[in-house]
Amino acid sequence: MVYLTRVEHFNAAHRLYNPEWSAAKNEEIFGKCANKNWHGHNYELFVTVKGNPDPETGFLIDAKILSRIINTHVLEEVDHLNLNEDVTFMKGKLCSTENLAIGIWNQLSGKLPPSVHLHCIKLYETPQIFVEYYGD
Amino acid sequence: MVYLTRVEHFNAAHRLYNPEWSAAKNEEIFGKCANKNWHGHNYELFVTVKGNPDPETGFLIDAKILSRIINTHVLEEVDHLNLNEDVTFMKGKLCSTENLAIGIWNQLSGKLPPSVHLHCIKLYETPQIFVEYYGD
Amino acid sequence: MVYLTRVEHFNAAHRLYNPEWSAAKNEEIFGKCANKNWHGHNYELFVTVKGNPDPETGFLIDAKILSRIINTHVLEEVDHLNLNEDVTFMKGKLCSTENLAIGIWNQLSGKLPPSVHLHCIKLYETPQIFVEYYGD
Amino acid sequence: MVYLTRVEHFNAAHRLYNPEWSAAKNEEIFGKCANKNWHGHNYELFVTVKGNPDPETGFLIDAKILSRIINTHVLEEVDHLNLNEDVTFMKGKLCSTENLAIGIWNQLSGKLPPSVHLHCIKLYETPQIFVEYYGD
Amino acid sequence: MVYLTRVEHFNAAHRLYNPEWSAAKNEEIFGKCANKNWHGHNYELFVTVKGNPDPETGFLIDAKILSRIINTHVLEEVDHLNLNEDVTFMKGKLCSTENLAIGIWNQLSGKLPPSVHLHCIKLYETPQIFVEYYGD
Amino acid sequence: MVYLTRVEHFNAAHRLYNPEWSAAKNEEIFGKCANKNWHGHNYELFVTVKGNPDPETGFLIDAKILSRIINTHVLEEVDHLNLNEDVTFMKGKLCSTENLAIGIWNQLSGKLPPSVHLHCIKLYETPQIFVEYYGD
Repeated sequence: MVYLTRVEHFNAAHRLYNPEWSAAKNEEIFGKCANKNWHGHNYELFVTVKGNPDPETGFLIDAKILSRIINTHVLEEVDHLNLNEDVTFMKGKLCSTENLAIGIWNQLSGKLPPSVHLHCIKLYETPQIFVEYYGD
Repeated sequence: MVYLTRVEHFNAAHRLYNPEWSAAKNEEIFGKCANKNWHGHNYELFVTVKGNPDPETGFLIDAKILSRIINTHVLEEVDHLNLNEDVTFMKGKLCSTENLAIGIWNQLSGKLPPSVHLHCIKLYETPQIFVEYYGD
Repeated sequence: MVYLTRVEHFNAAHRLYNPEWSAAKNEEIFGKCANKNWHGHNYELFVTVKGNPDPETGFLIDAKILSRIINTHVLEEVDHLNLNEDVTFMKGKLCSTENLAIGIWNQLSGKLPPSVHLHCIKLYETPQIFVEYYGD
Repeated sequence: MVYLTRVEHFNAAHRLYNPEWSAAKNEEIFGKCANKNWHGHNYELFVTVKGNPDPETGFLIDAKILSRIINTHVLEEVDHLNLNEDVTFMKGKLCSTENLAIGIWNQLSGKLPPSVHLHCIKLYETPQIFVEYYGD
Repeated sequence: MVYLTRVEHFNAAHRLYNPEWSAAKNEEIFGKCANKNWHGHNYELFVTVKGNPDPETGFLIDAKILSRIINTHVLEEVDHLNLNEDVTFMKGKLCSTENLAIGIWNQLSGKLPPSVHLHCIKLYETPQIFVEYYGD
Repeated sequence: MVYLTRVEHFNAAHRLYNPEWSAAKNEEIFGKCANKNWHGHNYELFVTVKGNPDPETGFLIDAKILSRIINTHVLEEVDHLNLNEDVTFMKGKLCSTENLAIGIWNQLSGKLPPSVHLHCIKLYETPQIFVEYYGD
């Protein structure tokens, strides 16, 4: 069993905001992150898959193919967009890094070739904060 | 003459959009960067000052004092905000990294103690793109 | 189950020295790290907690609150100090990165809100050496 | 149980090429990576070992000794060399990052002092692609 | 005057070898870098241009256009290739980082729009060695 | 004219302390940096030299030779030592990053082969603070 990780980047706007709360409570809990005009991040995404290398190629999966799958199912949905307003798979969800990592897992789950298994989504929101999700 | 650089970070939303152009021309020139719902970045800011170290402290300027000046005049104006909507010193300007670096220079110019001179603003928008401005 | 990591930094002096050994044996085993006048490092600390995101906030724990807990129980005890001389939780222990990571675990254990569990302390001593400790 | 990681670097040439395939099939599957005149990388290697710190030193293993073992059994075999042509432990194997990580595991397995166990080989081929191998 | 830098990466094989010298002298001067079967690197390239931002876009030059120019005139010529064997603009030259940076300058000189000027080529061969060239 | 930079690292203890001031004034001006039991850093040192590449080697200077010069005249003097207590070239000087960069310049000045000139000492004290010195 070998683990292969592909690192990708995207930029997006978001805000932390619970629509069931008052503006004051949102401001109290989320502080500057609740700013009504949004803020944004350069997200750094690590997608890790696991499995056995193919004896004919030495590859678990061609990293370019993995990159293409991530681009199609994740980056095209989030890059240079607004996570709260523009992203179908985050509709109705709070746009925390935790929920975004789970959303990205769900986007990729079932999209990989049968020989590899999705192992971990690791997502940096800033160089000081990141989340990891293993699917359960 | 010694040069001292302090590195700071901020997160902000923005969009590239020329209000004198049609939506189609904005889309043509700025592509995804013109998204009407904004996107955002983790900006990395390098502020370089120059001068002679004080013989009593060995400091050109105490890096904590420099950090406080940058926080007051720059970070509090831009961090977790929308560069197009919320930032006074970018009002009426296109929110490119070039113009943002010039705007940050103007915010800091004249705010430093007389013994140091502002030398360079270096601003990373993403790990692949940065701008430097030396004040002229 | 989601894992959230907060990255923090501190600077400290230390030396590697076993008081039950002669100076010669300390020098033989620890080399330059035994220097009687100390040396020091910029330590980079990764604190990982695990649990389920709160449905009302999307947060496992607010990263600012986690940062405050780390500051109170770790950084205020070690930053800009001497690990051998000034740090209560390292008293009587050899100041290796291994023991420092275990000491930081013990400082944080029991200090987190009940909804999150401490998962891992990862501590870089230099960009080439780091230690991970999972509490057992 | 504590985990200690030592980070090392090496530079090498390689090509991806299956000798049982035609040049056209190699080109189709491996693209530019099959270039007959080779290409190369700065590999970044993370070797993680686990065990209990020695009470007399506070060390799991002296990081300088670990570095020396990695130098003798890995770096001297691969650094500034051609993975396909010059490296005994890769003879007859496809020089993918996956196979190289497994090869490095096999080089180090059995070469460590009895008090520590090899835990993980993590190998970056580029800043965007890395492989982890845990020995099974 | 503003300076804009675009960061790009490429991987290549090379060797240091003066064909007018004996193998022994090449080995003496270049050491492991003269290995006849090549070695290689992940090169990191910083291309800096200077000029005045366009008042209609706020851009000195669209970073995507700059990236396309670098891709066409540099990366397509060197990426996943052998600097000594495959690269037209290095023919007959010693493949040091110094000469490669000068060669990249010459490839880009004259290929930029008239509103911007090439200012600096900065090229990392490894994380510990880089070269800068300003065109004279 | 080409510029070549070699990056090196060292670890050291220090404190900021003006012996002509009272303990209270040192504490007021230098804060935690004045701690009597020292603190320390992983310093990152960039040494830049300039000149013309040798036509026979393509090198401005062999980076291994430059590294050896830096090791002999700088790293052996400061690594794993106490800047205030153990370092001859800092005797009687305040151990600020500014003065340390100037001290390193003076250590290297006159130690390079005649074909290259020392251009810049760049010294990171932490990832957020660095100093540059050009010799005047």
